[in-house]
Amino acid sequence: MKNNLFKGIIAYPITPFDKEEKVDISLYKKLLERLLVSGSHAVAPLGSTGVMPYLTDEEKEAVTEATIQQVKGRVPVLVGVSNLTTERTIYHAKFAEKAGADAVMIIPMSYWKLSDDEIVKHFDTVAKQITVPIMAYNNPATGGVDMSPALLKRILEIPNVTMIKESTGDVQRMHYLKRELGDDVAFYNGSNPLALAAFAAGATGWCTAAPNLIPNLNTDLYNAIQNNDLNEAQKVFYKQLNLLKFIVNKGLPRAIKAGLGIQGIDGGFLRSPLKPLTESEVKELGLILEEV
Amino acid sequence: MKNNLFKGIIAYPITPFDKEEKVDISLYKKLLERLLVSGSHAVAPLGSTGVMPYLTDEEKEAVTEATIQQVKGRVPVLVGVSNLTTERTIYHAKFAEKAGADAVMIIPMSYWKLSDDEIVKHFDTVAKQITVPIMAYNNPATGGVDMSPALLKRILEIPNVTMIKESTGDVQRMHYLKRELGDDVAFYNGSNPLALAAFAAGATGWCTAAPNLIPNLNTDLYNAIQNNDLNEAQKVFYKQLNLLKFIVNKGLPRAIKAGLGIQGIDGGFLRSPLKPLTESEVKELGLILEEV
Amino acid sequence: MKNNLFKGIIAYPITPFDKEEKVDISLYKKLLERLLVSGSHAVAPLGSTGVMPYLTDEEKEAVTEATIQQVKGRVPVLVGVSNLTTERTIYHAKFAEKAGADAVMIIPMSYWKLSDDEIVKHFDTVAKQITVPIMAYNNPATGGVDMSPALLKRILEIPNVTMIKESTGDVQRMHYLKRELGDDVAFYNGSNPLALAAFAAGATGWCTAAPNLIPNLNTDLYNAIQNNDLNEAQKVFYKQLNLLKFIVNKGLPRAIKAGLGIQGIDGGFLRSPLKPLTESEVKELGLILEEV
Amino acid sequence: MKNNLFKGIIAYPITPFDKEEKVDISLYKKLLERLLVSGSHAVAPLGSTGVMPYLTDEEKEAVTEATIQQVKGRVPVLVGVSNLTTERTIYHAKFAEKAGADAVMIIPMSYWKLSDDEIVKHFDTVAKQITVPIMAYNNPATGGVDMSPALLKRILEIPNVTMIKESTGDVQRMHYLKRELGDDVAFYNGSNPLALAAFAAGATGWCTAAPNLIPNLNTDLYNAIQNNDLNEAQKVFYKQLNLLKFIVNKGLPRAIKAGLGIQGIDGGFLRSPLKPLTESEVKELGLILEEV
Repeated sequence: MKNNLFKGIIAYPITPFDKEEKVDISLYKKLLERLLVSGSHAVAPLGSTGVMPYLTDEEKEAVTEATIQQVKGRVPVLVGVSNLTTERTIYHAKFAEKAGADAVMIIPMSYWKLSDDEIVKHFDTVAKQITVPIMAYNNPATGGVDMSPALLKRILEIPNVTMIKESTGDVQRMHYLKRELGDDVAFYNGSNPLALAAFAAGATGWCTAAPNLIPNLNTDLYNAIQNNDLNEAQKVFYKQLNLLKFIVNKGLPRAIKAGLGIQGIDGGFLRSPLKPLTESEVKELGLILEEV
Repeated sequence: MKNNLFKGIIAYPITPFDKEEKVDISLYKKLLERLLVSGSHAVAPLGSTGVMPYLTDEEKEAVTEATIQQVKGRVPVLVGVSNLTTERTIYHAKFAEKAGADAVMIIPMSYWKLSDDEIVKHFDTVAKQITVPIMAYNNPATGGVDMSPALLKRILEIPNVTMIKESTGDVQRMHYLKRELGDDVAFYNGSNPLALAAFAAGATGWCTAAPNLIPNLNTDLYNAIQNNDLNEAQKVFYKQLNLLKFIVNKGLPRAIKAGLGIQGIDGGFLRSPLKPLTESEVKELGLILEEV
Repeated sequence: MKNNLFKGIIAYPITPFDKEEKVDISLYKKLLERLLVSGSHAVAPLGSTGVMPYLTDEEKEAVTEATIQQVKGRVPVLVGVSNLTTERTIYHAKFAEKAGADAVMIIPMSYWKLSDDEIVKHFDTVAKQITVPIMAYNNPATGGVDMSPALLKRILEIPNVTMIKESTGDVQRMHYLKRELGDDVAFYNGSNPLALAAFAAGATGWCTAAPNLIPNLNTDLYNAIQNNDLNEAQKVFYKQLNLLKFIVNKGLPRAIKAGLGIQGIDGGFLRSPLKPLTESEVKELGLILEEV
Repeated sequence: MKNNLFKGIIAYPITPFDKEEKVDISLYKKLLERLLVSGSHAVAPLGSTGVMPYLTDEEKEAVTEATIQQVKGRVPVLVGVSNLTTERTIYHAKFAEKAGADAVMIIPMSYWKLSDDEIVKHFDTVAKQITVPIMAYNNPATGGVDMSPALLKRILEIPNVTMIKESTGDVQRMHYLKRELGDDVAFYNGSNPLALAAFAAGATGWCTAAPNLIPNLNTDLYNAIQNNDLNEAQKVFYKQLNLLKFIVNKGLPRAIKAGLGIQGIDGGFLRSPLKPLTESEVKELGLILEEV
């Protein structure tokens, strides 16, 4: 396999805001530290969970730097640097590399639907400007474009694109990746309710916001898979499934913030137009967390 | 669990026709015998693979009787009895029971989209007329209606509806069934490319036409799961995945017939408007079967 | 334009059943007569509205003969003869022609998804056995297959396929037909809520069950279009839109039967699994009919 | 009707870039002037056609100011001010109002799917900060969220939200708007291939990039509708349909730039990742423009 540092549970921190909806870096570091001590195998700031698209350039840079400082090399760091324009993607990718990121994640954000050639050119142009590895991320629901397996294969010909994150929620895509790419390329699951199916299909890691709330169940699932113990993996998976579905259905930033609140941890504020879960949604989440 | 006889590999025979497009019962029995001796744990005549909706009442009855005679109790028999009208469904269900079927499978066929109440009433009315167990089958692609998990739960309150076959191709549905129904109800996977994910999710059996072509790989997968050996299951699954995808994409009756031909076995003729695979499709299938 | 008799409002009668769910031919004739005297320009028995797929061969033949007898040449008759197999489609097409139908309507019913070649062959084989014109009908929701405009073009090369009925509900399909086929082929709208858009796009006729309940509004719309009076057409269309949407959403046979009941006309019984509208649905329909 | 200035053909200018992919304001003004002299009834800078989401805040401000200067009150100006966050939407809305815009257009851009309450709050918060009218824009394909008719009705209760632009491509939505909102609210069509159907349904105007290439055909369609001449409207519509479909399928900024080139007009450069049409696409567009 193309060498890579990332495997197991790749935890996504939220980006907390203060009352005036400014990024709260001090609180961010506290929440990040929780992920680090709870056993996650890597962290990924500025993902969807971290509401990256809602942040200004300066805010993104501050979060990137805060992450590197807090992690201090304890686990690998994967920084989200996606942007609608190629120029801005390069800018953020270079910033992340210079700040000390171990890899960057890029989803081809799309307002005007991009052609396959435009997407390949976008990745290629960015990749040439950095030396750290790139995780290409496919998530039509948020990125607006669905990269076919054939397109992903083309993108993987770029030397420092070494990882694929799949979030379509279709396990068949993972079958394709595994079968076509064999052991040369690692693929990662980004769809929480598919965690068991994706590991069964051979995923190298699970990109997830769930460790903010249930870190032990997440690592237990990975360990069962490592031990080739499907029965245990199934048992552990069904224990956490209700929570995984809830946080996906309600939106990760909102749901994680609410869950932290239930666990007595300050998750800060959201940035508008995102609003907190309703009272009844919080109650439902409380019941799910109790059962876990 | 509600007691049931069905588990493992439930094999679906094709219904072969002669040159005049009449059902060829003698050839049917030969093809069925192949499934029986190759280790399938049960057989299911008059499924989609058996082109049940293309047959007359008399033809369906002949196939049912031929199956019971040929099987001679060696494995359990699950007979498809679905029909657009409730009256005809009852007719065929009673016929199958009298002929000696161990269970019947019913998909609520839909021309005019049925309401949930109409579907429940349909199942209930049929169920009251027979004593053998019923497998409720969800397959929006062929049946025209997608039964929600909530609706399936209602149908399962009918005493002799004891099994669910899921063919939406969405592993999340199986998660739901497993979590909601626990160990009280068995669920079966009808989506071939989901075979690994479904067993990982806890499916009791796999309803499949693949044993017509690759019986050993099918049972090997089931055995690996029984042995809690995920690594082996994954290996065996990826070996057969290309074939599973091919037969689904090309249509089971066409693809199985073509595969039998490649293996030197007479699969008879198809009934119009269904036509044989094209030459290039047959060539593609040949390459896939060689690799297996 | 290839000469054809059909234009304007092509009315679809329901097939009423008696208490024992047997076809009630005597009541059928009465309901058909209402359509004839109310100004419809043609009638189409054994359509979706007439629950053709739920009928036995004998019942279909009885309905066909009853229609010809009752119409007595007053308007052209278009008989639905679709069937899952080619052999049965031929059978019913020949029966309809012999009975005196002016044309037959064929939707390529699909259980196993048909390839384009299979569909062309199906139409071609049937067309060669009859001399009356064929209306090719595209309705993925009930037929299970969506014929692309390119496929429709191929089918129209068959000499006696002279008309297209489009029920995808996508006005763009009609644009395509009009642009590609010009004045050589007539296209008909089968999507009730698209009636105005389809006529604006150049449809020759409207295939609809609505004349069972609101014949004058239907013909008023057609007349406004004939008079090149868009303002009037818009006004008349919005008057009937609520009803058109209701009957489509609830299913035509159920909704027409309920509407007849509200108007004091006996619509007979439905055949299971189809059930009458609920009380609250009937009330809603009552309010809509009052406003009309 | 809530008083509004906008009706007829609302033309969308592209935002041209120079070789270094910087916004070329001088070229922008020339292209805008073409729209003004060709008879468009209003102009709408910073729409999808104007690649608004790809611009920095400073660039958006420059385009807004250039538009007001160039238009000099000759036609009403509708400025796009949508943004992922509420705070930035307010910022741009206030800027547009101060610069002299007659109205602003807002699509609730969505990365994390917004709830109905979040969308209403977003519109309400912005609306309170300005006095010019707001056109609420529904376009799931680019905005990422599909506002149901019921939600649009809620948003229209905000006093200065007075116009709806619909780009789902589903004429039924326009029927709903017309029927529910009657003459109180104007609705505008944003789906080019639906131009005829939308006017037939009662749309007040057509938001379109087509006047960059075929201004006369666009205004001819509107005039035919104003004259209640459906036959003429149909004729004029079919003349331009191929072009309308082409520019939508290829993406408006790319297609308009290519079309300008064919017509001998400098359309500047695109901003990466957007790339020019391929040679064969340009050739296809050339043939379409010749036929017009």
